[in-house]
Amino acid sequence: MRTITIKPQAITHNLNQVKKMAPRSKVLAMVKSNAYGHGVAAVLPALQQADGIGVATLTEALEARQLGWDKTIGLIEGAFTTDEWQQAIEHDISCVIHHAPQLQWALDNIPPANSATRVVWLKYNTGMNRLGFNAEGIMAAAKRLHEAGYQLILATHFANADDSTHPLNAMQIQRFSDVLSTLQETVSNDIKGSLCNSAGIVNFPEHHYDWVRPGIILYGSAPVIDKSAHELDLQPAMDFSAQIIALQTVQADNAIGYGSRWTAQKDTKTALVSVGYGDGYPRVISDEAYVTVIDTANDQSYRCAVIGRVAMDMTVIDVSTAPEDIALDSKVILWGDAPHVDEVAAHAGTISYELLCRLSIRPNRIQV
Amino acid sequence: MRTITIKPQAITHNLNQVKKMAPRSKVLAMVKSNAYGHGVAAVLPALQQADGIGVATLTEALEARQLGWDKTIGLIEGAFTTDEWQQAIEHDISCVIHHAPQLQWALDNIPPANSATRVVWLKYNTGMNRLGFNAEGIMAAAKRLHEAGYQLILATHFANADDSTHPLNAMQIQRFSDVLSTLQETVSNDIKGSLCNSAGIVNFPEHHYDWVRPGIILYGSAPVIDKSAHELDLQPAMDFSAQIIALQTVQADNAIGYGSRWTAQKDTKTALVSVGYGDGYPRVISDEAYVTVIDTANDQSYRCAVIGRVAMDMTVIDVSTAPEDIALDSKVILWGDAPHVDEVAAHAGTISYELLCRLSIRPNRIQV
Repeated sequence: MRTITIKPQAITHNLNQVKKMAPRSKVLAMVKSNAYGHGVAAVLPALQQADGIGVATLTEALEARQLGWDKTIGLIEGAFTTDEWQQAIEHDISCVIHHAPQLQWALDNIPPANSATRVVWLKYNTGMNRLGFNAEGIMAAAKRLHEAGYQLILATHFANADDSTHPLNAMQIQRFSDVLSTLQETVSNDIKGSLCNSAGIVNFPEHHYDWVRPGIILYGSAPVIDKSAHELDLQPAMDFSAQIIALQTVQADNAIGYGSRWTAQKDTKTALVSVGYGDGYPRVISDEAYVTVIDTANDQSYRCAVIGRVAMDMTVIDVSTAPEDIALDSKVILWGDAPHVDEVAAHAGTISYELLCRLSIRPNRIQV
Repeated sequence: MRTITIKPQAITHNLNQVKKMAPRSKVLAMVKSNAYGHGVAAVLPALQQADGIGVATLTEALEARQLGWDKTIGLIEGAFTTDEWQQAIEHDISCVIHHAPQLQWALDNIPPANSATRVVWLKYNTGMNRLGFNAEGIMAAAKRLHEAGYQLILATHFANADDSTHPLNAMQIQRFSDVLSTLQETVSNDIKGSLCNSAGIVNFPEHHYDWVRPGIILYGSAPVIDKSAHELDLQPAMDFSAQIIALQTVQADNAIGYGSRWTAQKDTKTALVSVGYGDGYPRVISDEAYVTVIDTANDQSYRCAVIGRVAMDMTVIDVSTAPEDIALDSKVILWGDAPHVDEVAAHAGTISYELLCRLSIRPNRIQV
């Protein structure tokens, strides 16, 4: 059976790694997109030591409240409408404000003094050019919000923090630091700062400021290009597995699967695995892709190459490396300890974040 | 709000197209992988004129029964265990038998005479080399199943039916036709045949046999490489949309998004769209990708290019083609009538099937 196994204790371990790396910062743990596909209900209990969580939509925020999360919730794109802003107040959600309409909604509807919505994450565009005020706009917005009684966290987002050598990083850090200093001098010395996502936490330890915002690192993937999850002592929080449902020998010179993409050079023992892109395993994957087969008969493991085109419901692997009598229902690890989801993502020309988020509802979900 | 809109009447229309193309065949409508991501509960009522449905797992079969589907259900990879075979009998599921263990389970546990499980789809491997008996095995299996009281449908699957010029097609058709004739002569003249998936239905009208098995064509995508969905008079059954949540002008020479992948050649009016790969829009997409923006103020439509890297929760588009005062909450069609999901898939280096299946649970789902 296709199975997604979530390991909450791995998430707690990874959160502790973040806290060790950023000991003086509060932690806003990102659980948007259903906790990067891990399931927010499974993940929240593992994040009890975080200071808050970050979500992308009001629906996600309300779901977390319903699940009993009573600490900070940061809505990282803010309210989409004035009605959403009202609902944020109702449920004590702290919002990003990144453009003029949101600023107006906040000035027109001021939450009670003790409301968490009084804390605003004011977004400064330092070079991502996706959302946020420019330097001029941010000064004016900060001044008006402060005067209206809001507490401010100046926030920005790195475009290239995964690559510590990228020249934009230093520019973003400088712009952020300059504006934060000016705001603290001219508006309020109580204005806080938040700059670092997972990659920033690893690559820019001198610039963690008041709040860090770890995402992928909590789920056990490497956020930077030059260090592996293993080197960062992270534990993968998800195992994605399926099973062998048939064994076959494909004769030399015969091709396998759609597009006849893979041709057997010699007679080849193959296994059919009950998983495909209809479950979330990527359809387009390189010839280097592999899975780990665990023989249910004796718990032995074998590394087996993925061959042919991944289909909606089935994937073929080369089991030449396994013994002739491997059990029919043997377990197949698509990602977990080995291969790590970061490896699978590299073989699919993308990043682990996408593989984790784009799982379908078909696989069975369990926790250990 | 991210919204997936399902159009059951489009599915009924597409089913009628199939019935026109294959007027002498019964139709097994494929609803595996949650009806290609459309949601099986939304799709089944639109398939009332189909003779049966096809699913990939016993769980999917039981879900369809629970939703009230009382006609044929074909389990296209068959039972994975002897216990699943027993459950198939219990719920009147017709199974594929593609390898020796399944044959043994069927011979050891014969369903009652009036059971739908008495109908077996016997899988012959004609060149896909993924599952199925070889020519020798198929003769022996057919003989034993027939003697045990089973009614047989000989089935095989094309590897390259989307490309009518591929030489393997003729070979697969020949092998299938030869074995079916032999079986009808030597075992029972009541043995039926099933060869064609969506692409086969379009490309090989002379070889439709008793049952056709349409899949993607029901959902409005083109199953062949040389004809568009429009040319085949198919209607897309899904609209995937989101909304503009911010407008910005990016100055010339500034880059947008992760990896600073897209640089503005001149000052460019951009819009932030509340959708990303965390919803199922593909992260890796070419510079030709576009969306349709519908201005909520006046219902005018604009074609806008996707720029920069698609992120988990946000995507940036170039709205230079739209008027300055486009409404903030304007609707953004990611796929639907235009762009068609087949176009988006081409821009993402894959096929529409994968985009449809790999939608996450985050988008809101509605029917019209």
